[in-house]
Amino acid sequence: MKLIDGGVCAAKGFKAGGVLCGIKKNRTKPDLALIVSQVPASAAAVYTTNLVKGAPLTVTKAHLENGIAQAVICNSGNANTCNADGIQIAQAMCQMVQDAAGIPAQDVVVASTGVIGQPLPLEPIQKGMAPLVASLSETGSDLASTAIMTTDTVKKEVAVEFALGGKTCRMGGIAKGSGMIHPNMATMLVFITTDASISPKMLQKALSADVADTFNMVSVDGDTSTNDMVTVLANGLAGNPTITEENQDFAVFMQALNTVTIHLCRMIAGDGEGATKLLECTTSGADTLAAAKTAAKSVICSSLLKAAMFGADANWGRVLCAIGYSGAQVDVSKVGVKFISQAGSVEVCKDGSGVPFSEEIAKAVLSEKEITIAVTLGDGPFGATAWGCDLTYDYVKINGDYRT
Amino acid sequence: MKLIDGGVCAAKGFKAGGVLCGIKKNRTKPDLALIVSQVPASAAAVYTTNLVKGAPLTVTKAHLENGIAQAVICNSGNANTCNADGIQIAQAMCQMVQDAAGIPAQDVVVASTGVIGQPLPLEPIQKGMAPLVASLSETGSDLASTAIMTTDTVKKEVAVEFALGGKTCRMGGIAKGSGMIHPNMATMLVFITTDASISPKMLQKALSADVADTFNMVSVDGDTSTNDMVTVLANGLAGNPTITEENQDFAVFMQALNTVTIHLCRMIAGDGEGATKLLECTTSGADTLAAAKTAAKSVICSSLLKAAMFGADANWGRVLCAIGYSGAQVDVSKVGVKFISQAGSVEVCKDGSGVPFSEEIAKAVLSEKEITIAVTLGDGPFGATAWGCDLTYDYVKINGDYRT
Repeated sequence: MKLIDGGVCAAKGFKAGGVLCGIKKNRTKPDLALIVSQVPASAAAVYTTNLVKGAPLTVTKAHLENGIAQAVICNSGNANTCNADGIQIAQAMCQMVQDAAGIPAQDVVVASTGVIGQPLPLEPIQKGMAPLVASLSETGSDLASTAIMTTDTVKKEVAVEFALGGKTCRMGGIAKGSGMIHPNMATMLVFITTDASISPKMLQKALSADVADTFNMVSVDGDTSTNDMVTVLANGLAGNPTITEENQDFAVFMQALNTVTIHLCRMIAGDGEGATKLLECTTSGADTLAAAKTAAKSVICSSLLKAAMFGADANWGRVLCAIGYSGAQVDVSKVGVKFISQAGSVEVCKDGSGVPFSEEIAKAVLSEKEITIAVTLGDGPFGATAWGCDLTYDYVKINGDYRT
Repeated sequence: MKLIDGGVCAAKGFKAGGVLCGIKKNRTKPDLALIVSQVPASAAAVYTTNLVKGAPLTVTKAHLENGIAQAVICNSGNANTCNADGIQIAQAMCQMVQDAAGIPAQDVVVASTGVIGQPLPLEPIQKGMAPLVASLSETGSDLASTAIMTTDTVKKEVAVEFALGGKTCRMGGIAKGSGMIHPNMATMLVFITTDASISPKMLQKALSADVADTFNMVSVDGDTSTNDMVTVLANGLAGNPTITEENQDFAVFMQALNTVTIHLCRMIAGDGEGATKLLECTTSGADTLAAAKTAAKSVICSSLLKAAMFGADANWGRVLCAIGYSGAQVDVSKVGVKFISQAGSVEVCKDGSGVPFSEEIAKAVLSEKEITIAVTLGDGPFGATAWGCDLTYDYVKINGDYRT
């Protein structure tokens, strides 16, 4: 499993591109992305559980019913959600891909991200289609990943190389994160491509299993988005024997997928709106997997802990508090907490009570960019990891006036 | 039902006081409060559901098993939580009340609020007991309400007068709120006194019913405190026929209690850490009470909505988003949203989609200190109200360095 360059274009037969078509005023970087596969691909997706769903999700779901897709179109600047004509708009975007790139509309995945409840104008997208198709290239992942950014400050791209049945396969992904990030049985916008050959059914199985431990364990602000979606396209051009059951190849494929998704999770959490730090909470010693996950996610979601981490304040009482109200069944008299970073490690709580520690060392540990909050819950066999970020002045600033 | 002065001393036979004993360095206002009843009183309480519980809650729970109490002692500056010797410390505080004021230790309610996980020193409290008892007076509610403040910026006091069986009764309360406010089957620190005569069983019934619609519908930051507690002492000195069943008098008593608690809820929410605005979300037209409450509370808890309200940004998509992920079963195509304040009212969403509105009027409405987010969920018979506050730079500042 080797990290490589190329993002969504790392896999054979995928091109991507992006243009600035002008959906939102004042934007200077691309706002419309396209990813295409040379041939129809097995496709799988997971969607937000928010009852308020973006219209593009409804259209994508219908298009993926046969497990096949060949392109992804995505705009930023407008979520196309809570609009009376949303479905028609999303369908029109797919039709435009058919007209401009020759890919059947029903094989197009469509996604939108941005403000909720404002009509999405089709004119700029229509005008942008010809230059968008012209921008497609095997080095276009960069453009596409830029085009799907909203308040993200960094592009989110990753790719890996691995072998299946003696054939070299590649898998890559791009993501948009930042705010309204609290996936629940689903996730934010993530597009993954691979040239591995795998049946649609096994691809969906792999994706659904993976997100439970990856994107569903990320939170920036506790707000589950209306437009969350992850899709994977697998076009089979690597030539490996098609995966159709849970064999050794499926395990390798899962490992590749997990490498890609965890990488993107960490990038999304670390680039949460206003964030200055990536927080990782690991739990161990839980009696059940549910307790391990619930406790880890609760710690990552606590506004009080997030603000304390921003201030590099070793206020471990807030970790205990968040575990206590999480709903996880834990024996609080067995809980231990350590803060860990590149600068070292400091134990602050053992058996549910404080232990003396050096404030100076704690400050140094917590002043790093990546902090692990390592929690032991007892002597059970289960553990979990959740990712989040600190709560900062800039989160408030960004969201105090997001629409205008 | 008339609002009167006097706080926890408004009811006959109650005195209160407070002193600065020096639990936390640099504090200049009182940090130790005492409330006493002239005679033993019926007593009821509700407690946090956080599994991590402050030691004072365990001691108070034991003392209230017989439904009788005569005094409340409460310190700020230290929560006495996650300390190995916490129970002994809390018991010692009750014993000090017995030694200094002659009230049996087992009739004392003990509470602490402040930092979690730091040992609570008894010396300052021991030294403060004589002046604390000397400070007791019928106008001491003010001192007591000041002594229980942590990051609160205003004292929280209220009292009402009402009649039961031809007798004038009074009820008053004080509260400490501010941060770590997200009550769950319980609430923050609230002490209520009344001279009405009511059995301990009916008092507990009244309190438990009341908090479900009041304190449990408040959230500042989504963090359920380890030290949440509400207690009511009813000493019977008004001379009304003792309430022992759900009769008309019980209904009047409930109404008085509800007036006091809603008043305190609004004060707690409006003085949330860093808050500049009180947010009230009302829901109506729900098919179930659960849906009405869940949706209202979800809106109030959304970090994105809270930041938008700070910026006076009419970003109603965030209201829809929060309803959608709340877990409440609602038909999103029927949802309507209005923003209301002293400056007027503006409808922003109808039947799940946006309606044109004046940004200028919306800005004026949202620039007020108290904002109502009025949500219609359909045509069902149920409604609910939840209270919260905006998310501001100061919340981050206060909690970036809380311990030191």
